[in-house]
Amino acid sequence: MLRFTIIGCGQMGSWFAENLARRGADILLLDRNSRRASLLAKRTGGEVLNSLRKIPRDRPLLLALPIREIGGVLEQLTNHGRPGLRIVEISSFKKPVIESVRYARRKGHIVASIHPLFGPGQKNDENTVTVHVERASRAEDTLIRMLLPKSEIRRMSWMEHDRAMLVALSLTHFIGVSAAHLLSMHGAIPVKTRSLNSLLSLISIAISEPNDFYTDYPMTHIQAIRLFKKYSESASRWLKMFKNARAASRIMKIRKTLQARYNLDAAYKRVYSNSSNC
Amino acid sequence: MLRFTIIGCGQMGSWFAENLARRGADILLLDRNSRRASLLAKRTGGEVLNSLRKIPRDRPLLLALPIREIGGVLEQLTNHGRPGLRIVEISSFKKPVIESVRYARRKGHIVASIHPLFGPGQKNDENTVTVHVERASRAEDTLIRMLLPKSEIRRMSWMEHDRAMLVALSLTHFIGVSAAHLLSMHGAIPVKTRSLNSLLSLISIAISEPNDFYTDYPMTHIQAIRLFKKYSESASRWLKMFKNARAASRIMKIRKTLQARYNLDAAYKRVYSNSSNC
Repeated sequence: MLRFTIIGCGQMGSWFAENLARRGADILLLDRNSRRASLLAKRTGGEVLNSLRKIPRDRPLLLALPIREIGGVLEQLTNHGRPGLRIVEISSFKKPVIESVRYARRKGHIVASIHPLFGPGQKNDENTVTVHVERASRAEDTLIRMLLPKSEIRRMSWMEHDRAMLVALSLTHFIGVSAAHLLSMHGAIPVKTRSLNSLLSLISIAISEPNDFYTDYPMTHIQAIRLFKKYSESASRWLKMFKNARAASRIMKIRKTLQARYNLDAAYKRVYSNSSNC
Repeated sequence: MLRFTIIGCGQMGSWFAENLARRGADILLLDRNSRRASLLAKRTGGEVLNSLRKIPRDRPLLLALPIREIGGVLEQLTNHGRPGLRIVEISSFKKPVIESVRYARRKGHIVASIHPLFGPGQKNDENTVTVHVERASRAEDTLIRMLLPKSEIRRMSWMEHDRAMLVALSLTHFIGVSAAHLLSMHGAIPVKTRSLNSLLSLISIAISEPNDFYTDYPMTHIQAIRLFKKYSESASRWLKMFKNARAASRIMKIRKTLQARYNLDAAYKRVYSNSSNC
């Protein structure tokens, strides 16, 4: 039988608890906020633990915590007691956690460091992609498959992952928030273009993040701030270009670069194949 | 039999020509660039006209021209000759054209001023919305239905329409272009999050516009520039808030405002119901 202990009952912890429960798993839940753990336990038929020390060592562990808490919890779990814990951590940036992951491995534990590239809005793990960084053993693959039987797993280094996430996560959320702010000052828009629908998708993702997302590593570390600064400068520069009606030729160049990288034509077709006109 | 004369064989003119041809229409085509008209005529079985003066007055006309050209062409068409022309114009902003539309009406012509809220990526007019501004007669409705039999028609004043488009079209394209620029400086992102996919949708729409879109009214008029400036300032302000880790509480307020206006939860669900993980 599938058994798991989930530490952290926020959005992603809940997502995993519910998905494991649907597959008939036996779940233990732990959260600093014990009410949150109890509510999730009720929804999923799980049981609540009230201390890290009570965690059974024979079932795999999922760490679904804010990035800044992962290192500490990993150390608490692995500093004492016998080796052989099986742990999965799912932080969206790896720099702040990778040293703790390696430390736990040196202490004889199996630690899979993954990043599921989807939010809690996902129904199940079909048609999803999960990044697996710094894979150290086959035991990690088995562990990941228990949690995410159908997700497509892509292996890469933590640096490659973090570099990608700086744009794919930090920048996109920054743009979503900046746009959300401006839209909130503008009254409701009575009709929606395809581009407004796309922007609203971006905004809906940004706005649905839990609060700690916006005070934690992904959005406040120095590299992210630098990138936001570049974006803000890019916006000022384009402002000038539109003012002087000099934008068109620059856009043509950018179009060529991006088209080669991202197949924007296909993205464009998808925009129109989705017939919902909310 | 359905007959139409299309003036302007750019992206939207081509879209209408192809859609009318598919419905068995007899089409005449006119473009300042006669080669462009000939190519479209070949694709659609239409015929090319080479002068505004040769336009038959008994079949309806579609003006699919850059905004700055519409007024002039409307005047050329209606200054001489008998009244009774039936004309549809489809500009995406109405301020620069509405006076010419009214002038043509005073001269005894029927002019429908519409804005189809979709781009040339649209397959047909099913599940689309078209705005009809300043409706003056039922004859306009008949005319629009010939072109767009299935589009949902929403009537509003030209001012209401333009105010909405300032955000739904100008701002979204500005954000798309600013983001495209930054992305083009960053190498390909090897994995895609849902938020990156949404951003790429926005970018693909912005990047697919014809060049004159970016030198013409929507993107260069003073109100748009003012809005871009506000957006650029909003981005700088959020940069500071993330620097100081003060973003979370502000985002909560914005979330409430926007959720009430746009049902962002539904938008969020749509992001995850679209299973393509390009």
